[in-house]
Amino acid sequence: MNLETSLAALLKPVQPGLARMREVLLAQVADASPAVRDMTDHVSRFQGKQLRGSMVLLVGEATGNSTDEHATIAAIVELIHLATLVHDDILDGAKVRRRVACVNERWDNQVAVLLGDFLYARAFALSTDLSSRLCSRLLSEATRRICVGEIEQATRRYDFELAQERYESIAGAKTATLYAAACELGARYPAGNEEQGAAMGAFGWELGLSFQIIDDCLDLTAEESELGKSAGTDVQDGKVTLPVLYTYQRADEALRARIRDIYTRPGLSERAKALREQCDLKPGLDYAQNRAEQLIESALGRLSRLPAGPSRASLEALAGFVLARRS
Amino acid sequence: MNLETSLAALLKPVQPGLARMREVLLAQVADASPAVRDMTDHVSRFQGKQLRGSMVLLVGEATGNSTDEHATIAAIVELIHLATLVHDDILDGAKVRRRVACVNERWDNQVAVLLGDFLYARAFALSTDLSSRLCSRLLSEATRRICVGEIEQATRRYDFELAQERYESIAGAKTATLYAAACELGARYPAGNEEQGAAMGAFGWELGLSFQIIDDCLDLTAEESELGKSAGTDVQDGKVTLPVLYTYQRADEALRARIRDIYTRPGLSERAKALREQCDLKPGLDYAQNRAEQLIESALGRLSRLPAGPSRASLEALAGFVLARRS
Repeated sequence: MNLETSLAALLKPVQPGLARMREVLLAQVADASPAVRDMTDHVSRFQGKQLRGSMVLLVGEATGNSTDEHATIAAIVELIHLATLVHDDILDGAKVRRRVACVNERWDNQVAVLLGDFLYARAFALSTDLSSRLCSRLLSEATRRICVGEIEQATRRYDFELAQERYESIAGAKTATLYAAACELGARYPAGNEEQGAAMGAFGWELGLSFQIIDDCLDLTAEESELGKSAGTDVQDGKVTLPVLYTYQRADEALRARIRDIYTRPGLSERAKALREQCDLKPGLDYAQNRAEQLIESALGRLSRLPAGPSRASLEALAGFVLARRS
Repeated sequence: MNLETSLAALLKPVQPGLARMREVLLAQVADASPAVRDMTDHVSRFQGKQLRGSMVLLVGEATGNSTDEHATIAAIVELIHLATLVHDDILDGAKVRRRVACVNERWDNQVAVLLGDFLYARAFALSTDLSSRLCSRLLSEATRRICVGEIEQATRRYDFELAQERYESIAGAKTATLYAAACELGARYPAGNEEQGAAMGAFGWELGLSFQIIDDCLDLTAEESELGKSAGTDVQDGKVTLPVLYTYQRADEALRARIRDIYTRPGLSERAKALREQCDLKPGLDYAQNRAEQLIESALGRLSRLPAGPSRASLEALAGFVLARRS
């Protein structure tokens, strides 16, 4: 059974909610303007597994807190995720560099900025129609934190002395925040148990951070063909992620100099490949994998306090998938 | 009396509200992260005349609808305006071109995207703390319309056949929408007279569209030194604005060809200057100025239905300023 089939099976407990979520998404990205419709059609194809939206629904079911509005919240979470993806395309130095000779470069940046803004605005507008303001509140605050995390990350390029705790708070802010908000909303929207909301928020945070750590490892080790997206972009962009940080901070000066050189030497292409071939990253990669496992273990512990059932089982299996990812 | 002094005098009726608005803005752009604080400090300096925020307060006073929350709404409107300015810096082809050789180009784009997103998120988060959801609703919808207007504009480059009505709906969407929302909120927040809200929304729309038309004329005719910002960027970016549209659509084929050539010939610098020197734009500029005057006249008519008083008088004078702008 491949990943797609397994995922479909796991999402079975929330199939009707997912179908409603997709209807809401379709209606939201459609717009009277043909120019906008062309673009939203295009980005809809980026949507992938819709894990974040699914979490809203699964956590709602697993905590017994599901409402008719959960599908709309799931759609809002997916719209925000889509907006961050669209804006990430501008941030992604590797792609910008590859496109730099292209006459459409400037237009692409324009469109990406505006389209991302459009998707954020749609998401917030949609949240103002819900019966409770909790969704607007949590998601506008989550969006703010995501931006702060990304800005912090941009200012920490080439910072090989970054403490692991700081790395985690930045990596978490940019990725785990939305998982945390999705799970918290699933567990307590519109006005449910705050304690349960906080526990499921922590579950989402740990899952999301683990996801990001694995992502950072894959960006370093995977070939582009496996990953289905650009690989090696972190090194190319000067982002020092956990496996490199760990390796660097325990390396002798010769290895440190080599790592810095590979990150910064002008004109060097395929920096991640050079790093793999010229430096022993295994200790860092093992450490990062362990840390991701620890986080998932803690996340699973939080689930164990929920009543057993198909949605809890699906959340447990999803947490397991994070560690098994190879793309 | 210069413009700054006059403006200060006009804003006298809402001085206490403006002071509160600035306090809220300062608190909002401050953030725990030093990296973010550096950037928000920097962009705070772009803020200029804070006309949009002032409109919320003046319309609130003039319609007798002022509340303690109007200052916060004014701050939210200014935050959204600031976010659009920050993102416009990415969209602005002229600036991108000038910076293209700079090593910081990519970092600048990154920061601009993230900082704009941060400001939008702050604005929406702040609006969720207000007692009524009207502000979140109107401003998220306004933001969506602004983005659609900008996207439409980007897809209508070099479109010399654009109908005037379409030009106005696009120029209005990108600029007048926020003035309209500011005035509507001023007139009816939290749950006031909808008819009055609609009338003041229309006032804001006409004022904002007039402002944009004058802006389009100035971008074509002004020297950079007068304007205090880049001039000629519309022509450089392929934006066909009302004065050019009007001139083009009434020109013979020789003049049309000349206009198209100046817009599109590769490598031509100072296109706006070339246009001024080689084409008679006077009919188009006069027509655009007339149209701006018509809009202001209609806007003043809407004010005349409000009770006379210092705030109404200030709004009338502000409308007059739009036409007198030379920068």
